[in-house]
Amino acid sequence: MVHLKLDNMDIIRHDKASLKELPSRFRGHMCNSLPGFKSTCLIGTVNNQGIENLAVFSQLIHVGSNPAMMGLLFRPHTVRRDTLENIRSTNQFTINHIHASFVAQAHQTAAKYEASESEFDAVNLTPEYTETIKAPYVQESQIKIGLSLCEEVTVQSNQTILVVGAVEEIRFPAHIQESDGYLDLVKSGTVAGTNSDAYFNAVPISRFAYAQPGKPTLKI
Amino acid sequence: MVHLKLDNMDIIRHDKASLKELPSRFRGHMCNSLPGFKSTCLIGTVNNQGIENLAVFSQLIHVGSNPAMMGLLFRPHTVRRDTLENIRSTNQFTINHIHASFVAQAHQTAAKYEASESEFDAVNLTPEYTETIKAPYVQESQIKIGLSLCEEVTVQSNQTILVVGAVEEIRFPAHIQESDGYLDLVKSGTVAGTNSDAYFNAVPISRFAYAQPGKPTLKI
Repeated sequence: MVHLKLDNMDIIRHDKASLKELPSRFRGHMCNSLPGFKSTCLIGTVNNQGIENLAVFSQLIHVGSNPAMMGLLFRPHTVRRDTLENIRSTNQFTINHIHASFVAQAHQTAAKYEASESEFDAVNLTPEYTETIKAPYVQESQIKIGLSLCEEVTVQSNQTILVVGAVEEIRFPAHIQESDGYLDLVKSGTVAGTNSDAYFNAVPISRFAYAQPGKPTLKI
Repeated sequence: MVHLKLDNMDIIRHDKASLKELPSRFRGHMCNSLPGFKSTCLIGTVNNQGIENLAVFSQLIHVGSNPAMMGLLFRPHTVRRDTLENIRSTNQFTINHIHASFVAQAHQTAAKYEASESEFDAVNLTPEYTETIKAPYVQESQIKIGLSLCEEVTVQSNQTILVVGAVEEIRFPAHIQESDGYLDLVKSGTVAGTNSDAYFNAVPISRFAYAQPGKPTLKI
């Protein structure tokens, strides 16, 4: 690590070698903050014995719109990972947005509860079912997505696993949708996250029209 | 699509069939909003002729901390994708956080400029180079990450491509880092995005300690 002085500002610079030397947790906090603000949601699953699982997750990515698909990136499967195992055995999972009103409960789902204990009970959130998806939704959530397992892709470099799901069902309050399809996530009160431990409300800066060369950047 | 009345709230429900029937752009806006707030950054690359490219990108994911790796998900390679082609030919790219002061310029990089034109020039942002990475950074950005190509993984379901990069270099202002390694993205003024067209400032709700079963959820 080196400190650089640029325009009177103290800049920290790391390279591969100095990153390696850092204490593991310190490096983890830093590297987990690097991607910026992330989608942070609750993933609902159930196992074949009917035990529900709920886990806060920030490694979530939009994979496609037609057909609609979303992905979750899991760390290597070397310890018990109930969410991944439940998705594999039932082929279904739910994604539920988190709101400020239950952000501490959402975070608490990251605790390592016994496999026999439902995080819904442990943190006092309410499972909710529909006819389409056998995995539980979070009743308290405003935006809920039910998915079925499409595919697993392994990243060879570090054995993380991208689980890709096809969207089977979506539910959200009508008033958050704009006429062009866009969902206003400030109206839904969706939180953003970073580093798997910090949660934020969002304040709009601007929404912009489709960008075109040689034309001004228009707000919409 | 059906409208449900739940607790006096008008809820919209879509299933796979009703999603398919929607106009393509409407579905795109909706599905792109579903993952919540996303990492939205500028990706800097250069081609073998030295022409720089800069592209706003929201399909970004943390892949690992030891070694540090990050991933970008690209749509199928059926049209000209300068960023992907430049990464393939030079093996390097940069990730640069976006701030409110240049959010319109960042958005404007999404316009389809000629391959011979640098988006840095077109939107008036400043390329910056270090000895470690041959791809350009964005001088105006507070948090800058230089990466080399590790691996490409194709999602068979829709032919999107996850490009995984190894972190070679990181630079950020010293004052945004907490003693445990965490980077305070509110201090850096990093924006969040959604739907590839909307940008937000973040307001902290809370940061929580490592969650443990049977213990209260503690703020830090």
